[in-house]
Amino acid sequence: MKELKKRIREEGKVIGSEILKVDHFLNHQIDPVLMFKIGEKFADIFENKEVSKVITIESSGIAPALMTGLALKVPVIFARKKKPVTLDEGSLSTEIFSFTKQVSNTVYIEKGMLTADDHVLIIDDFLANGEASLGLTKIIEMAGAVVVGIGIVIEKSFQDGRKRLDHAGYPVFSLARIASLENGQVTFIER
Amino acid sequence: MKELKKRIREEGKVIGSEILKVDHFLNHQIDPVLMFKIGEKFADIFENKEVSKVITIESSGIAPALMTGLALKVPVIFARKKKPVTLDEGSLSTEIFSFTKQVSNTVYIEKGMLTADDHVLIIDDFLANGEASLGLTKIIEMAGAVVVGIGIVIEKSFQDGRKRLDHAGYPVFSLARIASLENGQVTFIER
Repeated sequence: MKELKKRIREEGKVIGSEILKVDHFLNHQIDPVLMFKIGEKFADIFENKEVSKVITIESSGIAPALMTGLALKVPVIFARKKKPVTLDEGSLSTEIFSFTKQVSNTVYIEKGMLTADDHVLIIDDFLANGEASLGLTKIIEMAGAVVVGIGIVIEKSFQDGRKRLDHAGYPVFSLARIASLENGQVTFIER
Repeated sequence: MKELKKRIREEGKVIGSEILKVDHFLNHQIDPVLMFKIGEKFADIFENKEVSKVITIESSGIAPALMTGLALKVPVIFARKKKPVTLDEGSLSTEIFSFTKQVSNTVYIEKGMLTADDHVLIIDDFLANGEASLGLTKIIEMAGAVVVGIGIVIEKSFQDGRKRLDHAGYPVFSLARIASLENGQVTFIER
């Protein structure tokens, strides 16, 4: 996605050789118009998958997931990292390790929110080691639902998440694929 | 907002006399089409305030805030409850106590994201004791920016948040105002 790569080049901040900070349009301050276009793009890509629900994890995945749900006219679920006091008994949960934050989180989805009839599209802001997406596939499959695809805004292709998701057999589409962040430079994999 | 009240009546679940659970369209599963309409409504209400930024707190405020930003064509900032490893030094922060979760959170906004020229609209999913909105007003004013209004999806008018915000002089507009949740019944304040 050309406009996204432009924004990454112009506004992204590389920290070390592994972290890309895009806090000005994606995951702290959000550009709603760019997110709307990202949602339309994902809807185009996965339009033949009969998506019945979009799922993500709070918080940074919510914006692209919500816009994808808007374009597809389907509900969006965000898995919660803390068990809310209002969560019913019998929720589905799994452990997800965040390499960026160096903590393990249990993520929750309320029981009954996904059914065996659901065709679920996973959307997330970043793909690094694949922990978050793989965790979501587990929860979706616990509910008996089907994962029809995984849409990623920014893929760090030099980490092994993409390989792990491909290996597990899930269709993955990333709007921007980053080959390297070496020397403070963002190098994309051009298609 | 008629459609919102209908959804609260039909899908809301009252727990005790203080908690309204709207996890099927607002803060766990989200209805993106309803959120889009909510965003347009807030944009209408605050259209003369020269809003330059919309601000909320992760996670449940993100959906209505994002759609309001989309309608107003301005950036949306979500304050973070955990200090991300990628956050710069010198961020703005304040303490917010959540009565629902019975925990105190420090919320953060990165330095430089708000300037003294900003006219900021606060959007949140719920107004109960007003802690979250008052915390955001503090951060906004620390940055020298102006709070031009507060838009709330669901106001629990039987708690004292509305009174506290009115008293502090902020213009508040709530799309649904709940007079009482007694006996498992949602009673609205009708305008």
